[in-house]
Amino acid sequence: MLFTKMHGLGNDFVLVNCFEEKLDLEQAPALAARVCDRYLGVGADGLILLLPADNGDVNMRIINSDGSEAEMCGNGIRCAAKYLYERGLVKKDKIQVQTLAGMIIPELTIESGKVKLVRVDMGEPRLERPEIPMEGPPGKVINEPLLVDGKTYHVTAVSMGNPHCVIFVPDAEMVALREVGPCIEKHRAFPNKTNVEFIQVLSRQEVIMKVWERGAGETMACGTGACASAVASALNGHTGRRVTVHLKGGDLLIEWAENNHVYMTGPAEEVFTGEYPV
Amino acid sequence: MLFTKMHGLGNDFVLVNCFEEKLDLEQAPALAARVCDRYLGVGADGLILLLPADNGDVNMRIINSDGSEAEMCGNGIRCAAKYLYERGLVKKDKIQVQTLAGMIIPELTIESGKVKLVRVDMGEPRLERPEIPMEGPPGKVINEPLLVDGKTYHVTAVSMGNPHCVIFVPDAEMVALREVGPCIEKHRAFPNKTNVEFIQVLSRQEVIMKVWERGAGETMACGTGACASAVASALNGHTGRRVTVHLKGGDLLIEWAENNHVYMTGPAEEVFTGEYPV
Repeated sequence: MLFTKMHGLGNDFVLVNCFEEKLDLEQAPALAARVCDRYLGVGADGLILLLPADNGDVNMRIINSDGSEAEMCGNGIRCAAKYLYERGLVKKDKIQVQTLAGMIIPELTIESGKVKLVRVDMGEPRLERPEIPMEGPPGKVINEPLLVDGKTYHVTAVSMGNPHCVIFVPDAEMVALREVGPCIEKHRAFPNKTNVEFIQVLSRQEVIMKVWERGAGETMACGTGACASAVASALNGHTGRRVTVHLKGGDLLIEWAENNHVYMTGPAEEVFTGEYPV
Repeated sequence: MLFTKMHGLGNDFVLVNCFEEKLDLEQAPALAARVCDRYLGVGADGLILLLPADNGDVNMRIINSDGSEAEMCGNGIRCAAKYLYERGLVKKDKIQVQTLAGMIIPELTIESGKVKLVRVDMGEPRLERPEIPMEGPPGKVINEPLLVDGKTYHVTAVSMGNPHCVIFVPDAEMVALREVGPCIEKHRAFPNKTNVEFIQVLSRQEVIMKVWERGAGETMACGTGACASAVASALNGHTGRRVTVHLKGGDLLIEWAENNHVYMTGPAEEVFTGEYPV
């Protein structure tokens, strides 16, 4: 099986062109688990299969390293869009991608034939407490005190399809993420647990984010976390609705548009190509 | 740069045939760091360069993911031997490999043209306390009490070029490796720190090993640890001098021969081939 290894801000994927490679899709979860193993396989966060679509340009399936299937992934779809364009599979600057989360249309910024950036509609934020979900009376959760291990944090809760708890701090580097992260992730206020973002505001257009991902811990980049943090920054009046988020893995530009959709623009990189025996 | 990804019991390497690939060797440490990165590179424990030798069949250099160079590595040289034979670079069942630790001559077990197992001379064990090194009066350290955090362990100390502290237990599965491992690794009795092996004896020919590697934590396999553990098992009268060691990543056969050398026999696997842009 020929493959291409790519990453979006350190979130890495093995991409397979299933227009050419004929895989047994019933075996895809087992294949993903084998391929994603970082010691015995190729090593990746997920396997992305690019398949012929009955509607749109391409059907994208993202299978996590544990064999489960992801509905969508902002970092993954940027990789897919760059691959499809640069390999000449879809020579358009707006690509219609069928996903389990519906049709997503990444928009490409092209320079000298290469995809420099990809912009993706990440959908609408949900702000009502039961939509997060978060325990408590109805209404939005904006800069609300939350008692964690005897210390009070002021939190803003945003769902981008998954829950986020955003906290503004004067210095993101000073946050003891591994100590505080798990306590908030598993706080009883969040029945489905939560992702946790610590945000340092640099200006009206720029923030630094440190993220503790639900079930994964500290990661280099979390696309939905960057979206939720930009929304929370605007809701709290710290920034406008167009914000560059500096993450450990690189930068994402987040725009919370007038149509209430959140758009994420960022890079994708090809790392190497290979052949894996199936 | 064309490469082949291989592993020996889960200890994984990117191998490059430098008879064909012309690399700038001064850049090898930087290249290893980039290539070994598990998110932004190919991902491996080390980069193995196979080069023309002025003496012997091949010159092998092993560069760790942090850019430092390893003198030798039992799991790595098995991968190299399999690669050299199966690619037809050295069509012998004993290959003379130049390493920083001197000439090593892996012996291949071949079945149907494939390398099934590789046997490697791992050198002589060192047992005198200052050779480990370990604090205390001169002499060997065999089944000697060591107080760790208020609890007494009976330890046997063996150096295979690096220090090992071997402890026999009734049930290897019951060992709280992450708690006990670091305490012994950094115990003041070991001025250079130590690897820690917990050994459950199954029979005169068979043991189970759980290993806490110095600087790396729990790993799937540690070749020198398996050698040290077999030596310690024989010294304590638990086994003969020929022992199969069951590790998390698979099995190694260890023989402590009459010439005082320790021989390790184990498998190597090819995972995939690829091309990485340099």
